[in-house]
Amino acid sequence: MIDFKESEYQSRTEKVQKIMFEKKLDAILLCTEPEVRYFTGFRSLFWQSPTRPWFVVIPKNGKPIAIIPEIGRDLMARTWIDHIITWPSPRREDEGISLLVGVLKEAKTIGLLMGEEASLRMPLSDFEELKSRINGYFYDCSNIIKQVRLIKSEAEILILKNICAIAGRSFDRAGGLFYCGQPLNEAFREFKIALLKEGAEEVPYLVGGAGADGYADVISPPSAKPLEDGDVLMLDTGSTLKGYFCDFDRNWAIGRASDLAKSAYSKLHHATEVALKEIRPGMTCEQVFILINNALGGGSSDIGRMGHGLGIQLTEYPSLMLNDKTVLLANMVITIEPSMSYGEGLMMVHEENICIRDGKPELLTKRAANELPIIS
Amino acid sequence: MIDFKESEYQSRTEKVQKIMFEKKLDAILLCTEPEVRYFTGFRSLFWQSPTRPWFVVIPKNGKPIAIIPEIGRDLMARTWIDHIITWPSPRREDEGISLLVGVLKEAKTIGLLMGEEASLRMPLSDFEELKSRINGYFYDCSNIIKQVRLIKSEAEILILKNICAIAGRSFDRAGGLFYCGQPLNEAFREFKIALLKEGAEEVPYLVGGAGADGYADVISPPSAKPLEDGDVLMLDTGSTLKGYFCDFDRNWAIGRASDLAKSAYSKLHHATEVALKEIRPGMTCEQVFILINNALGGGSSDIGRMGHGLGIQLTEYPSLMLNDKTVLLANMVITIEPSMSYGEGLMMVHEENICIRDGKPELLTKRAANELPIIS
Repeated sequence: MIDFKESEYQSRTEKVQKIMFEKKLDAILLCTEPEVRYFTGFRSLFWQSPTRPWFVVIPKNGKPIAIIPEIGRDLMARTWIDHIITWPSPRREDEGISLLVGVLKEAKTIGLLMGEEASLRMPLSDFEELKSRINGYFYDCSNIIKQVRLIKSEAEILILKNICAIAGRSFDRAGGLFYCGQPLNEAFREFKIALLKEGAEEVPYLVGGAGADGYADVISPPSAKPLEDGDVLMLDTGSTLKGYFCDFDRNWAIGRASDLAKSAYSKLHHATEVALKEIRPGMTCEQVFILINNALGGGSSDIGRMGHGLGIQLTEYPSLMLNDKTVLLANMVITIEPSMSYGEGLMMVHEENICIRDGKPELLTKRAANELPIIS
Repeated sequence: MIDFKESEYQSRTEKVQKIMFEKKLDAILLCTEPEVRYFTGFRSLFWQSPTRPWFVVIPKNGKPIAIIPEIGRDLMARTWIDHIITWPSPRREDEGISLLVGVLKEAKTIGLLMGEEASLRMPLSDFEELKSRINGYFYDCSNIIKQVRLIKSEAEILILKNICAIAGRSFDRAGGLFYCGQPLNEAFREFKIALLKEGAEEVPYLVGGAGADGYADVISPPSAKPLEDGDVLMLDTGSTLKGYFCDFDRNWAIGRASDLAKSAYSKLHHATEVALKEIRPGMTCEQVFILINNALGGGSSDIGRMGHGLGIQLTEYPSLMLNDKTVLLANMVITIEPSMSYGEGLMMVHEENICIRDGKPELLTKRAANELPIIS
């Protein structure tokens, strides 16, 4: 049930504690699923239920402390965590707040994720009560957690490679799964089943679109509209293995491909190719955005970026966009995701997943076909 | 792409606005997926990405206003919402906050979900900035949203019935899906595929357990341990149709059932039977808890409640537990979920989904077998 050796979690924790020492933070309070999982190894779909809050405190030294509902004790006890404090939740009059007050009573400076991309997964009223009952103060620690999570270990990269391979094999089966006349929601269903059969553990994210010469948006659930001759079909999946996500898409033409669609595909393929050849550690996210954007010959879409971090979430820091000055470092895993608008309200997206390495990046996905593949 | 007629969303909004008038609230700010979906019809898996915040403001009168990233404009425009304000997100220097300030500038009293089960799905630093830039104040509106969401329309109940039927047909196929020697994670995989084939659109939640005479916890991902003769296997799924969840489980014995397992099953089946016969509108959640607990003959487990609300989330208000004085009303949909600990660290859970009706409740799930079914 343990996804990594204890040394992996220890290393993550010690990296954070080193920065906590520099920043003079006495503790960090975590309440969100990715962070609790990242530092403890506690992995459960039970976070789907909003009823119970879950807390982890990273102290200055030593292992993280879990302050969690009783229902999670058994699973948490199978992680590397030793100090597990529980309460019988749901318990509306005190959902763990008194326990948190006890754990945090000595801390004067407490880190909390408050910055970009952060959520507070506990009632705001409970957070206000917590603030009023402790002596310490909360400070944003988004940048601390971010700089540790950014760099993946080889053990993490191996899992990411494996889930990319699973999705790649599933995409390779497109010709046998999709056909002209197939309702789009049936295509989605068949593809989810293919992903599971190829080895995906969960398919939390499958979006896509289809339409003549292209599609109009990339975040909608599928309609029952049948695929038609001349449609471009796109599927984009975030499937998981041990809680790690791939995130890439593939495009196909149904029956035949118009020059418009072929041209959009070629431009995006070329821009991706340039990125795969020229990205190097030391470049900033902004520089990569400009690189891809220039290769694409300008243009824009509603997506707002050309890629992002990838790991225990479908999207992670950083973003390949203007104004993101994050420097790419070896062992960061990111998506390369050029998109463009064309024709009348159409768009197309290409996506690959890479690991930044010394020299050229390592492609984690099986590269998309050079030309728009046709499903006949 | 629209899950309900416009009148459904209009009715939801007007119910909230009626209470807002009584409570003297000028606006309600929503930032979480279930609530945004509930009032607008905007349904997308894209919420998986934590990068972009999404906002909806319910004014005193008229339709909700969407303040969302540009990537969502196309999908939001297909809902009943007319007023859609977008920004090119990600945009770290201003993730929609200035736009929110503009929309909320006239509001003196603003509702926000701050109470039990609530999260703040926006950076806390952005929320603090928002507070400092508007004239109004935020007040907890959890109870307002809760009392509207609690009561399901017949259109919602029909979808819930359908997803319960889909999961029920999938559970009925257990004999052909599971076998002695099958690794537990393969059993999970086969069951997910069965759910999709039977018509589930998503399977966001499948948990379970297996072990001699019973299982030890109900929130873990599956191991690769093979099912053995004498094991009790339990699978519990929250699958969805149009974003509505079923949430129930089934238990089976592999090869043979011990007296210990059969006895636990019978007690739980009996307690459920009592609940199905005796629950009536007007009873409180606490009374139902006591009813089930008495039928079970006492005992306890780590789950902490005997059922909960069900709808657009896997678990919703209220909880069948002591101290929950929520009164059951017609057209509330809840789970009946007695659980018990027994033997050495074992537990068993039974779950059915019901709709509260005048008189006896309506069972939405196909009732579990009277005796622990054996897969041979």
